[in-house]
Amino acid sequence: MRMVDLILKKRNGGELNEEEIRFIIEGFTNETIPDYQMSALSMAIYFNGMTEKETAALTMEMVKSGDVIDLSNIQGKKVDKHSTGGVGDKISLIVAPLVASIGIPVAKMSGRGLGHTGGTIDKLESFPGFNVELTEEQFTKQVNDIKMSIIGQTGNLTPADKRLYALRDVTATVDSIPLIASSIMSKKIAAGADSIVLDVKTGSGAFMKSFDDAKALAEEMVAIGKNVGRQTVAVITDMDQPLGFEIGNANEVKEAIEVLSGKDVNDLKTIALTIAGHMAVLGEFYPTFDEAYADLEKRMADGHALEVFRQFVAAQGGDASLVDDLSKLPQAKYETTFVAKQAGYVESIIADEVGVAAMLLGAGRATKDDQLDFAAGITLEKKVGDKVEAGDVIAVLRSNKEDMTSALERMDHAYTIGATEPEARPLVHAVIQ
Amino acid sequence: MRMVDLILKKRNGGELNEEEIRFIIEGFTNETIPDYQMSALSMAIYFNGMTEKETAALTMEMVKSGDVIDLSNIQGKKVDKHSTGGVGDKISLIVAPLVASIGIPVAKMSGRGLGHTGGTIDKLESFPGFNVELTEEQFTKQVNDIKMSIIGQTGNLTPADKRLYALRDVTATVDSIPLIASSIMSKKIAAGADSIVLDVKTGSGAFMKSFDDAKALAEEMVAIGKNVGRQTVAVITDMDQPLGFEIGNANEVKEAIEVLSGKDVNDLKTIALTIAGHMAVLGEFYPTFDEAYADLEKRMADGHALEVFRQFVAAQGGDASLVDDLSKLPQAKYETTFVAKQAGYVESIIADEVGVAAMLLGAGRATKDDQLDFAAGITLEKKVGDKVEAGDVIAVLRSNKEDMTSALERMDHAYTIGATEPEARPLVHAVIQ
Repeated sequence: MRMVDLILKKRNGGELNEEEIRFIIEGFTNETIPDYQMSALSMAIYFNGMTEKETAALTMEMVKSGDVIDLSNIQGKKVDKHSTGGVGDKISLIVAPLVASIGIPVAKMSGRGLGHTGGTIDKLESFPGFNVELTEEQFTKQVNDIKMSIIGQTGNLTPADKRLYALRDVTATVDSIPLIASSIMSKKIAAGADSIVLDVKTGSGAFMKSFDDAKALAEEMVAIGKNVGRQTVAVITDMDQPLGFEIGNANEVKEAIEVLSGKDVNDLKTIALTIAGHMAVLGEFYPTFDEAYADLEKRMADGHALEVFRQFVAAQGGDASLVDDLSKLPQAKYETTFVAKQAGYVESIIADEVGVAAMLLGAGRATKDDQLDFAAGITLEKKVGDKVEAGDVIAVLRSNKEDMTSALERMDHAYTIGATEPEARPLVHAVIQ
Repeated sequence: MRMVDLILKKRNGGELNEEEIRFIIEGFTNETIPDYQMSALSMAIYFNGMTEKETAALTMEMVKSGDVIDLSNIQGKKVDKHSTGGVGDKISLIVAPLVASIGIPVAKMSGRGLGHTGGTIDKLESFPGFNVELTEEQFTKQVNDIKMSIIGQTGNLTPADKRLYALRDVTATVDSIPLIASSIMSKKIAAGADSIVLDVKTGSGAFMKSFDDAKALAEEMVAIGKNVGRQTVAVITDMDQPLGFEIGNANEVKEAIEVLSGKDVNDLKTIALTIAGHMAVLGEFYPTFDEAYADLEKRMADGHALEVFRQFVAAQGGDASLVDDLSKLPQAKYETTFVAKQAGYVESIIADEVGVAAMLLGAGRATKDDQLDFAAGITLEKKVGDKVEAGDVIAVLRSNKEDMTSALERMDHAYTIGATEPEARPLVHAVIQ
């Protein structure tokens, strides 16, 4: 078999079989297939797409390229959750203790943030002492004991995907739906998931700006799940403005705890319950989604989920007393306000710009090696559809850096205030299963 | 400027400007742009094409990547000729002395053969002592003295094209019309041509099998010529079966000399006169092609062209006495015949297969380092449309290797003999200018 023939086949619209895809991924992993052939193939895939069978085979070959986490010592069906990423997305922090509180094991690996989006692992490190590196034994035991653990990625998972992603990033082949879908699914499967709930974001702040693209990605991932025996549900949720009111690390943890304590933050609650509901159905706790949603809504703030969260923080070495005294979370030295220059409605908020503003304050990393300021972040006082008067505080910016000029400029660019009251967008656009 | 952004632009259907194409070719030449980005760009070009302006800019940047031959010391307009390659193609050996005989300077660089097609330089080396490596001074002087020289490629011409071609070859991006067109044109321009006549082959034995593809390539090259100030004419000629009756090296030289001595080999004569006619018009010797064709036809076998050929062989160190005694050309030790198994018409001849058969006899190189057997080759006794009886000799195979089994098998595969007299194809399909 020669790689050039396989590139040609794909370029001419042919379908690669399992054996051919194995040859490609094995060769790419052991470097007998050079980057220049893999990038040409990626570009051909960008133009010609992949069939369901090809995408499933690619996913499983990327899984096999590295370690696969064995969660068989954890009792119960392991349901994982993944978000395609957004600004202010602290859904995992709400959903994980909620589904754990009804007995569904949450054995979750999460990533760190880069650029305008944050990472769950970073947010959790707002708790002084919180340890994201557990041994396999500690991880398994903790999930069996308290039903929940969230750690950083361990082992050498999907090295083929890592190399391929790095290559796609510099060859303009990132936004290929089968390549994105197989990348996400391979990581989830390698991390040991039996079933998967995907939170696919759509809107100006999402990677998939249009609903159609988000739907195509969701369908592709659900199809992969079907083809490789992992039940998968994709929920397409709105990311046209930041989620909730807090963007940062400690302040996002705070907001998640507040929601678990009964605070009614509409978008966070609705999306968290939708994700948790599907996880609970896949985890075979409820027969139908509607029952799951209704029951979880009742349970959300009854104290059980918050108790799991407390135990989880303590089990991983964090100071759980902060859960009950949020003022003990890291606090920034400086604070400034972003105010409305004119009266009107908040017509739109460019989520990415708010994410970049938070990053500039210290809440995110511009490059991999940047240090985070856990206390830095933004509290939004006004969101899309809110009426403002000139001089009203739209957002509060906090940082340990005194000069917040560039972040304020970003906020100014992010907000459009105009005369028209914008039409509300749905929070959950569709469910693909 | 970042290469990834330029790949993205092309992938999304945008037009690269001159500055961007300069950045790409300079970076690729000095290796600051890695192969994996160049191959991704090539695949994007395969799918999205290039505009006339882009293709012209690419051509000139490839020219500028290396040496450019200075033919300014040669008197007269330098008209070059290029063939996209075929089996039995000895047109250059006929055309060059013919146009030189009317005073148009032929300062030509030619290539060696690889695979199923031969190279003009190889064929000329059938003359013992023939030297294909002249200094610039020798080359210039010879063309000024006798109007003709053919040498191998000298200097470091179009290194960007060489590297790009090698990369395209292993990434399934060879058959992109703008990339083929700019590759051919850059080499001709770097070799010093003022005007160019292109012999674009079409048919089963050509790189461009279909007329439409050949026409698209021809049009693209003529457009490049216009855009970069080199008058270019493309003649689309037939390569659905081998050209003439001889395939090899010494025997192709012999056939060319026979045509220049008055032998009426229809396809060779017609195509050579068409190419020569356009060269003579571009060289400003005749006002119109029809006058050129008519006059050159009269001159073809009047002895002048053959005399130029004699002088040319002698000037480059070859034994010119062979021109007048063709039996002194290299002769093979072994000879075998390929005979018809059944009666009927020769319905088709797969030219590539005949080329491979000749290669297997020793007339061509399977790999770059193979030694040639100048005496090896094939003489076709029957061509498309000829009637045969079972047992008739279809072709004579000659080689210094005794075992010609595999070449005979190829011949068997090449010829289809059936009941239907095939329709004749035109020799010249179209002229693009």
